[in-house]
Amino acid sequence: MTTMRDVAERAGVSTATVSFVINGTKRVAPDTHARIVQAMDELGFRRNVLARALASRRTRIIALLSPVLDHRIGRTGMSIVTSAAVAASDRGYRLVLSPVSNDGREMKELLTDGLLDGVLLMEVQMDDQRVQKLTELGGTFALIGRTKDPSQLAYADIDFDRTVAEGLDYLVGLGHRQIALVLGQQEGTSLAGYGPYVRTEAAFREGMAARGLDPIVTSTEPSQRGGMSIVDTLLEETPGLTAIMVLNEDAAPGIVSRLAEVGRPVPLSASVLSIATTPALGAMSHPVLSTMNVPEVELGEHGVAALIDQLEGTMKELPQVLIPCTLQIEGTTGPAPAL
Amino acid sequence: MTTMRDVAERAGVSTATVSFVINGTKRVAPDTHARIVQAMDELGFRRNVLARALASRRTRIIALLSPVLDHRIGRTGMSIVTSAAVAASDRGYRLVLSPVSNDGREMKELLTDGLLDGVLLMEVQMDDQRVQKLTELGGTFALIGRTKDPSQLAYADIDFDRTVAEGLDYLVGLGHRQIALVLGQQEGTSLAGYGPYVRTEAAFREGMAARGLDPIVTSTEPSQRGGMSIVDTLLEETPGLTAIMVLNEDAAPGIVSRLAEVGRPVPLSASVLSIATTPALGAMSHPVLSTMNVPEVELGEHGVAALIDQLEGTMKELPQVLIPCTLQIEGTTGPAPAL
Repeated sequence: MTTMRDVAERAGVSTATVSFVINGTKRVAPDTHARIVQAMDELGFRRNVLARALASRRTRIIALLSPVLDHRIGRTGMSIVTSAAVAASDRGYRLVLSPVSNDGREMKELLTDGLLDGVLLMEVQMDDQRVQKLTELGGTFALIGRTKDPSQLAYADIDFDRTVAEGLDYLVGLGHRQIALVLGQQEGTSLAGYGPYVRTEAAFREGMAARGLDPIVTSTEPSQRGGMSIVDTLLEETPGLTAIMVLNEDAAPGIVSRLAEVGRPVPLSASVLSIATTPALGAMSHPVLSTMNVPEVELGEHGVAALIDQLEGTMKELPQVLIPCTLQIEGTTGPAPAL
Repeated sequence: MTTMRDVAERAGVSTATVSFVINGTKRVAPDTHARIVQAMDELGFRRNVLARALASRRTRIIALLSPVLDHRIGRTGMSIVTSAAVAASDRGYRLVLSPVSNDGREMKELLTDGLLDGVLLMEVQMDDQRVQKLTELGGTFALIGRTKDPSQLAYADIDFDRTVAEGLDYLVGLGHRQIALVLGQQEGTSLAGYGPYVRTEAAFREGMAARGLDPIVTSTEPSQRGGMSIVDTLLEETPGLTAIMVLNEDAAPGIVSRLAEVGRPVPLSASVLSIATTPALGAMSHPVLSTMNVPEVELGEHGVAALIDQLEGTMKELPQVLIPCTLQIEGTTGPAPAL
């Protein structure tokens, strides 16, 4: 078997320098680096991750935990996962996708088997038992999302306050005054206490009050049918309604098509703004939905950075990043109609 | 540090028996198993994956390669990934999500760094450079999908022949004779030579010919707009067209809505069947799309099994599994109209 010493001799450098290159522990001049890599190639030297990991007590493997056993990742979820995998790879880490249940019962095994340097959590709930378990066990972790009180935690999340405020600024600027918020149904599902709903509702109530307007908040089944039925309910209760903000991407197309059926077609007679969603999904509606898009790539990147910065001790303060959704105006929003 | 011997003494068993439990190499009576696990807990013995991996030369880590740098995983992709992660976990393996490019240039590093036991490929192309690289390098791998000639490869894929045949049986049974197939646009994109398109087109041409019918095959941009424009093109060229089979889930809703606009509403005046897609996506269309659903969970499970069976030498023959999509009749298909 080829050793580091063989590589060092071939490249004409010290064994320590070879070790710096293999372990990435110290910067080496580019031409020296190239010479060492060439020597390793010529000698068939394999950088064995395991041996290195045992020596350094670091594996450079992190796990992304998603409660996939209980709840399927939504459509926006995949872009976040992809972006996290790329960001981890860029920093020399590997991302393991670990299916765990919401109650966190597999957490201890994950942390104590010696494979993982740290874990990243997705689909975080307000009271998240996985976070409690990780904290108890003393593991290094970061969240994509936030718990109810995340002040002592590392996280990257959507800035729901700014997202809702910018959405309301846009709709109110178009003259809308009677605006409803439609969430996804959450009682009795694994989404009960789901952070995005809780934070969006709070921001909406506050934002409407700050603008001297009455908030209308409701929820419906995440489906075409759910979207259609909530339009009937809303218009019966509030005939003067002119705009609907939707945090329920599966129901948004149904809202748009039902509005047309009851003689309130968008964008002329009503406006629909689908928030925390993806443009690809908006493009499937007709007309194309105006959306506020989840910063998927940024969430994946900042989530990974929040974890790795802790692992490498390179952070100055606890990483806590909030990123607002970006407004994309398409065919379902327009000036408030004179009813 | 606690050793296996300490655990063995505490549990009153031999060190070999402790090893069977730790490495999962042999079945141990349930009460003995429980006693050993309790002893490990009490002594704080940590089953160290790395030490075990170095000893056995197996890490029980497999990678799922998806060319995410070039092409975003589609909506069906995520369920396959999730199912693969669960299936791997059930067999005591961990699934690493490795972003690699289509040309397979990172393949050598992946295989030679000692971390992975094997790799699973997704979004396989007819001529897939990653497969060539893996074959050259002698790595153990399996495909979710297939190359042009997969006879020597382990894979799990959609049975496009049976899917198209069952779809045609259904449409022809409803009286449709002039049937078009709409694919996604592929030239000049990373989907050029994408297996599902190639196989579906071949099966469609063959199936139509076998039924004495003329095949109409076209493609369009994967969007609402793409779906709408292809309806105009198709009806101009074939006014007697009554049914459209779609392998382009992002365009399907646009096809349905444009048909209504030009006076050919589904299901009364035309039928639309979206194939190799998910019911969740079909439910976003209005009326809800009739679909042939990708067997996502089965593909993930069989793909993982095809890989792990090779790794563990438990297979009798090369695992090659084809699974058809399942027909779900909803609101966009019905008897052929008398035009």
